[in-house]
Amino acid sequence: MVVKSQIKFIKNLQQKKCRLEHGLFVVEGIKSVKELLNSHFKVYKIYATELNLVSSSIQEVELIAESDLKRMSNLKTPNKVLGVFHIPKPVEIDYSEWILALDDIRDPGNLGTIIRLCDWFGIQQLVCSPNTVDCYNSKVLQATMGSITRVQISYTNLVDFIKGSGSQVYGAFMDGNKVYNETFNFAGIMVMGNEANGISSEVEALITKKVTIPQFGKTTTESLNVATATAILLNELRRSE
Amino acid sequence: MVVKSQIKFIKNLQQKKCRLEHGLFVVEGIKSVKELLNSHFKVYKIYATELNLVSSSIQEVELIAESDLKRMSNLKTPNKVLGVFHIPKPVEIDYSEWILALDDIRDPGNLGTIIRLCDWFGIQQLVCSPNTVDCYNSKVLQATMGSITRVQISYTNLVDFIKGSGSQVYGAFMDGNKVYNETFNFAGIMVMGNEANGISSEVEALITKKVTIPQFGKTTTESLNVATATAILLNELRRSE
Repeated sequence: MVVKSQIKFIKNLQQKKCRLEHGLFVVEGIKSVKELLNSHFKVYKIYATELNLVSSSIQEVELIAESDLKRMSNLKTPNKVLGVFHIPKPVEIDYSEWILALDDIRDPGNLGTIIRLCDWFGIQQLVCSPNTVDCYNSKVLQATMGSITRVQISYTNLVDFIKGSGSQVYGAFMDGNKVYNETFNFAGIMVMGNEANGISSEVEALITKKVTIPQFGKTTTESLNVATATAILLNELRRSE
Repeated sequence: MVVKSQIKFIKNLQQKKCRLEHGLFVVEGIKSVKELLNSHFKVYKIYATELNLVSSSIQEVELIAESDLKRMSNLKTPNKVLGVFHIPKPVEIDYSEWILALDDIRDPGNLGTIIRLCDWFGIQQLVCSPNTVDCYNSKVLQATMGSITRVQISYTNLVDFIKGSGSQVYGAFMDGNKVYNETFNFAGIMVMGNEANGISSEVEALITKKVTIPQFGKTTTESLNVATATAILLNELRRSE
């Protein structure tokens, strides 16, 4: 039987502070939980309303009542299984591959979509500024559609990270060179900026190549959303290989 | 003074059926209302909590109390101005320009993002299947960021529309030709399919060129989100000009 303290603990893991303190995060739904069980992520605990929903070889499964699942869930309609997993330890960055760097992306949907794009385009390293939304936030996890298992995500000071890289550093700006004229190397760093303010001035000072997605509509158009701009730029750097 | 029946009428315009019946839709917020006032859209009524918020030359402005605005608003925090505008009459399609066609896009955020992308890439004609989410839905309008004033949107049967076009018809598929190898003409139709089911079989039968965005990650990756796929394809067709 699930005790009250367990339910409270799971609920608390919705907060970033609690996730960092315990090194754990929550994933909901059969599909997502199975995807994590089949990945390098280490399981801490699985709560399921039926025992045959996850592989019988998993020791950490606990059967719970639907009412208890509802109490620990963050969803309006809980989906039978809730998994608690360990946040993986930071891995060393491989500078011989492409790296996407995010400077204060705040919207969970945008971060989730960007992780999914990294997965599609085989960009396995995502480096985020400390103020970027936490990738273990439930809305981010929902938007990644399982891609979180195939992209390594680190949170670190971008200035120090870029200074230590020795890489060619690209950044998305409104006034850079047309991205169509760029020939991308097989490795480098691509920086995307905050939804409202773009790339911060400290990071901008370290960008070696500013790139821009040309605009074909009227000039009154708002800038592109950061997730769609990322889609276009990742496609550009892969198509030029 | 605003009467109860007016508030009820504005609330009812949140429903597609009521919007179609009256040929009217609602936009909220100073920025969005101003953008529509400066466009080809015809104003029906503006409700504002202060008179100097919109141009004094607009006759249709009515001063209202914040409490009344709150009662007619669809937002948690209403933003001082609410505008009611006429849904524009359908315009004739110009087949000598690029047209984006949407086959049952259901998510309001996706449609809003796609309208914003059309605006960025100068695609002025968007043709939607009747089951595509209504572009005058408040969530769609919010996601378009004002681009709705610069893109002509029609709802029609896609099969009849394509049959009558005589155009080259491209469609986004998982198993088409690599989009990088395609040379796009100066005009044509690009079809994007439903979030879960892709392009319907009746429309697929009319596609002359199936295109695919190559995948560089592991093959277990989910497909791209339809809005990010649209971003990449519109960029591809403009960059090849």
